[in-house]
Amino acid sequence: MSLLEDSQWRYASKALNGKKIPQNQIDYILECIRLAPTSSGLQPFKVFIVKDQELKDKILPIAFDQSFVRDCSHLIIFAAWANYTEKNMNEYFDYVHSVRGFSERWENYRKRLIATYTAKSPEENFVHTARQTYIPFTYALMAAAEQRIDSTPIEGFDPDALDKLLNFHEKGLRSTTMIALGYRDEKEDWNAGMKKVRKSKEDLFEELD
Amino acid sequence: MSLLEDSQWRYASKALNGKKIPQNQIDYILECIRLAPTSSGLQPFKVFIVKDQELKDKILPIAFDQSFVRDCSHLIIFAAWANYTEKNMNEYFDYVHSVRGFSERWENYRKRLIATYTAKSPEENFVHTARQTYIPFTYALMAAAEQRIDSTPIEGFDPDALDKLLNFHEKGLRSTTMIALGYRDEKEDWNAGMKKVRKSKEDLFEELD
Repeated sequence: MSLLEDSQWRYASKALNGKKIPQNQIDYILECIRLAPTSSGLQPFKVFIVKDQELKDKILPIAFDQSFVRDCSHLIIFAAWANYTEKNMNEYFDYVHSVRGFSERWENYRKRLIATYTAKSPEENFVHTARQTYIPFTYALMAAAEQRIDSTPIEGFDPDALDKLLNFHEKGLRSTTMIALGYRDEKEDWNAGMKKVRKSKEDLFEELD
Repeated sequence: MSLLEDSQWRYASKALNGKKIPQNQIDYILECIRLAPTSSGLQPFKVFIVKDQELKDKILPIAFDQSFVRDCSHLIIFAAWANYTEKNMNEYFDYVHSVRGFSERWENYRKRLIATYTAKSPEENFVHTARQTYIPFTYALMAAAEQRIDSTPIEGFDPDALDKLLNFHEKGLRSTTMIALGYRDEKEDWNAGMKKVRKSKEDLFEELD
């Protein structure tokens, strides 16, 4: 199977059936998330996995009672760093040194990047860290599709309420997006038989010269 | 090959060799971009393809003279809608009706979404449209990797200068990110032999209950 075929197969299921995903397939999806690239390699986020039913039920009203939050096998929550700080950047740069060995190039890059980001406001930096979460988020969608696991992206939730429930502020994090992973409930899912709608090439692309 | 293997293979090349990518492989990458999912399916962006050398050379200083902008085969530019408007949303909702046939559910959703987004500021909406561009952007990285084409994500550029050069403001667009597609120059690419650095599972993931 190719990425193209997986993309054609995939859609956002609107009703899941509660069936559980085998652990080895979840592990595969998480490993793809872990390998996703990010700006400067910083991976400025944490990824939370919820399979506990009680916690899913608590999140349900925060996500406007969309049933797939309750009926998914695993809920994956992406939470971006609320800010770039000297501390969280230094941890990363030190880690790279520990894996690759010390290099002058990397040390200079550290100084430049820390100076650049700490000169910006937390809100500006969060715009950037939040965008980064969409890369592993997309990897997760594709890794699920590759294994014929349904995935419903969820931006329709109250991030402040979720951050409060999960104490993200104390961890220097802010939630950006979620994915409900599971298996479609064919009978209840109004979106299951729908024709995929995408803009035409002519509408979406333009070659410049 | 699997997404996991493709992800392990892929890295951000820092020097490309100018070799051209066959058109059928570019078409494959664009088709994957086109199929990428987005919030409510709106695809709130346009994607620009640059292979003209003169234009790449003009973009080079806007991207801080990073050589891969000059030496790529194709430069892919993602530009998000600067705002959600009644016009651009209605075009999409009408299009969905034309593909799937009229439905009450979709008509109600149109009203709700237009009311929601037009109540927000352009800047708030751009935060959202910009995030959406990272989904097709990520599809492009993966589609390139699947075909063993090198891809360098580029956030290091001056978006206002690029928008000005390409008249994006007049088109209601703002650039967010770019990808240089091509083939690595093994001798010049300091990043080619580097060990991939990613956070450990323990650092990146947390299971909640």
